[in-house]
Parts: sequence; structure tokens; C-alpha cells
Amino acid sequence: MTTTLPAADPSAARAQFRAGLTVPSSGWAPGYTQANLVVLPRDWAYDMLLFGQRNPQPVPLLDVTDAGSHRTVLAPDADLRTDLPRYRVWRDGECVDEPTDVTDLWGPDLVAFLIGCSFSFETALLDAGVPVRNIEQGRNVSMYRTDRECRPAGRLSGPLVVSMRPVPGSLVATAVQVTGRMPQVHGAPVHVGAPAGLGIADLARPDFGDPVELADGDVPVFWACGVTPQAALMASRPPFAITHAPGHMFVTDVPDAVYRQP
Amino acid sequence: MTTTLPAADPSAARAQFRAGLTVPSSGWAPGYTQANLVVLPRDWAYDMLLFGQRNPQPVPLLDVTDAGSHRTVLAPDADLRTDLPRYRVWRDGECVDEPTDVTDLWGPDLVAFLIGCSFSFETALLDAGVPVRNIEQGRNVSMYRTDRECRPAGRLSGPLVVSMRPVPGSLVATAVQVTGRMPQVHGAPVHVGAPAGLGIADLARPDFGDPVELADGDVPVFWACGVTPQAALMASRPPFAITHAPGHMFVTDVPDAVYRQP
Repeated sequence: MTTTLPAADPSAARAQFRAGLTVPSSGWAPGYTQANLVVLPRDWAYDMLLFGQRNPQPVPLLDVTDAGSHRTVLAPDADLRTDLPRYRVWRDGECVDEPTDVTDLWGPDLVAFLIGCSFSFETALLDAGVPVRNIEQGRNVSMYRTDRECRPAGRLSGPLVVSMRPVPGSLVATAVQVTGRMPQVHGAPVHVGAPAGLGIADLARPDFGDPVELADGDVPVFWACGVTPQAALMASRPPFAITHAPGHMFVTDVPDAVYRQP
Repeated sequence: MTTTLPAADPSAARAQFRAGLTVPSSGWAPGYTQANLVVLPRDWAYDMLLFGQRNPQPVPLLDVTDAGSHRTVLAPDADLRTDLPRYRVWRDGECVDEPTDVTDLWGPDLVAFLIGCSFSFETALLDAGVPVRNIEQGRNVSMYRTDRECRPAGRLSGPLVVSMRPVPGSLVATAVQVTGRMPQVHGAPVHVGAPAGLGIADLARPDFGDPVELADGDVPVFWACGVTPQAALMASRPPFAITHAPGHMFVTDVPDAVYRQP
């Protein structure tokens, strides 16, 4: 039996995913940045690029490929068509398939967007002594649609989606400072405390991910979330799109420290 | 005779420029961010947007308008067609006119890019006790084409252009820290010391702006410069473009402090 212990090296991790291993990428190549993937036809790429420029907290663009290319500067030897553990294929805003390889769907017209991911700042929070409850509880982070609209861009619009992490009151300031230094992976929180301030009715019922429990003295802290562009795709219904499957990210060669400002 | 003392208020400054006053905008509405302007047909806008994404230090995009709009979120009551003191009109990469109003040239196909400007960080340097020699000497900053190529984007490519400011050796670290906190207005220097490291043969002969003298103990410090997109336009020759005239920037309503990270 071959091992599925997470590879420490980004290239080795991608090779295992390329060979067919289909597991969430959390814990793989620790210390290296993982990225959300959105792939769109060239006709929609301008709107997506503008959506990122106008909404940098939920949509921090780490790289945008040339049309038709399956290569990214974030990992020069990677193949974006095969190296993620699992993809989602969207037609007219509906998820129609979850393949592990999209080579046969790739064409000269497609542009890939690689978007910063909160995995990078969870490592930084842990390094700073801030507990990350979703990791402690072995759950996916809780995510919520808010009543805040993103700034629209052409045909793309949709709500800001946030992730919530419970943080002990004495460590909220540390959590703000640590993540505030990482604007390319969502940056500082958009809201601290009362969920109603974002139009969230019930923390125990997230729109995406799992419920995560607050310990005594924890405050809910909300960060802009990389699911925001997927929510915009669902709302705006481009004829075709490919994304990563939730939790099954693209592992880059870029150390997290590159996105940590002094 | 009407006064031409610089207005302290951004809206008042724009009103005077709109009324026909044609002076460099340096010193106007101090404490408010000024921006470089690049206007391109929709067909070229994707390449420009991608050029900015790929080259954030020389091309920090503060806002991108909807096609045809002359409005920006950076100053909601401003009119981008009239409110700069002077414009440049480009055809096929050549500057063909320098009007003070471009209303008759504006059309539904044009997209405006507002790009961060080093005026913002010069204020921050002065606040931190770092002398700014070009201001002391009453000269425009020295700018140079380097031997570093920007990352191309579609049809747009060109050299990185840098500005140089002489900084006393004991204050170089301060200058790096102060500007490093302002990534949306070019951020930290790209190079300190030997000009040959950037392929610059002679500091006394800048490609743009004026020569600025180094005092004893000064080190040349180089920052990515907002002239970079104009150099790319000259090299890549889109059929039509409008920019600000050098030194005649767009005065926004955004306080410089907004672009200063903690």
C-alpha cells in the first residue's frame, strides 16, 4: 500500500495529486502557499480581473495566466489541468461535475485565476499562539454569505462571503495584527463580534463548511473569504467555469513568508 | 487677478483645474492622494489591467472605471475629463496633444485607470524626517529606464522605470520602512546603491525629469515609478490613449493615510 502521508515538498504533493490521489490539501507542503482556482473563458476574464481589483480582500489575485496556458509563475513546473486533487466544473452557474483532471476541458480560450487562501494565515495565527478552533475541532471553517455586496465588475456581482474563526478575547488584537500583515491572503478581519453586523442570523448554521464551536471567552472574528468569487459565479452564471473543489487547493512553490509583510 | 495659491481642499483644487488653471499639482490639497491617469479603449483595457496585476510595484491600480464612465470612487464628484490640470493625448504610441480638457475625446469605449503616485510617500518621508532632495532643490524627481523588463501582459510590455531619491546613509532604513508600508503608492525601494545594478549608466542623465544632486553621504535609492505604464504605452503603441501630463496629476478625495499600513 502506498502512503498518503502529506508530502512536505510542493512538487511532490502535486505529483501525488497528478497521479490520482484525491484528498483535501490541508496539511500538505506545510509552509507553502495554497491557492483557490477559478478558470473562465477569455470573454469573462476581464470582468473577473476587475472584480479582483475592486474587491481585493475577498479576491486577492496572486497570479493570472495567459489565455490558454496551464502554467503559472507560482509553480513553474506545475500543470494547472492535473495538479489539483479535485476540481469542480460549472455550466451556467451550476456545478455539473467534480473530476480530478480537466485536461480534456482545457482550451486556448481559458484564463486561470489563482487567488490567496486563508490556509496561509492560519499557519501564521498558530505561530503567534492564536488557537485555530476549526483545526482543533477537525472541521472545515464556517463560512457565511453576508448582507454586504461586493463592488460589481461588469457581469460579476455577489455578496461578500466571510469565514469565521472563534478567537479568545485576549488574542483578538494579535489575530488582527498577524493577518493584517498578509493582505494577499485576505488580510485583517472585516468584522469582529456581533454576527448581526454582517447580516448573519445564526452562527451555528453556516452557508458553507461546518459549524465550529466557540469556547468560553471566544469572540467570533470574520475574514473575507475566497469562496466569494464562487458565490459571484453562482449568481452571475457564466456559461462555463472550472474551480478547485472546496478544500482541494492548488499547492504553490511560494513560501507563506513571501506574503507576510514586515 | 485671481489667486493661484494651492487649494487645501481636493474639491476646490479640482474646481480650479476644471476652470482652466494649468499648473503642476504638486503641493495642492496636501495630505490627499494624487493619482496617475491612463485611459485606453476597452479592447486594450484587459491587457492594462493584467499589466497592473502582474507589476503591482510600478502599476498600483487604485481604481478602474466602468467603460465609458468619467467617474471614480476615489472622488465621487469629480469629472475625469476636465478635472486634471493638463492631459496628454497619444496616437499609436506618440504624444500628439497636451490639452486641458478631453471631454470631446471621451467615448463609451474608454476605460480609465487611476494609479498610485509617489507624491504620497514623499509626504510620509518628510514626516519621518527623511529629506527629499528633489523638493529641496525645486526640481522634478529623476527617473530612469532600467534593464529590468516588466512582466508582459498581452500586447503590453516595457522596461521598469524607476525614480531615484538621494537618501542619507543613516536614513536609508527609515526610508525603506516608511515606504514599505505604502504598497499602493509603489512601496519599498526596488534597489539601493550602485545604479549599474539596474543598468543605469549615469545618474546625472535621467531619462525623465531633472537631475537631482546627491549631498555628501547620500545613497541613491530607487523606487518603481508610475511612468512605467507610459513607457509601456510608448513601446506597445495602442491606437489611442489619454494620460495625465507629467506632474499634472488627478487630485483624489482619499487621505494619504488610507494607503499607509500600520
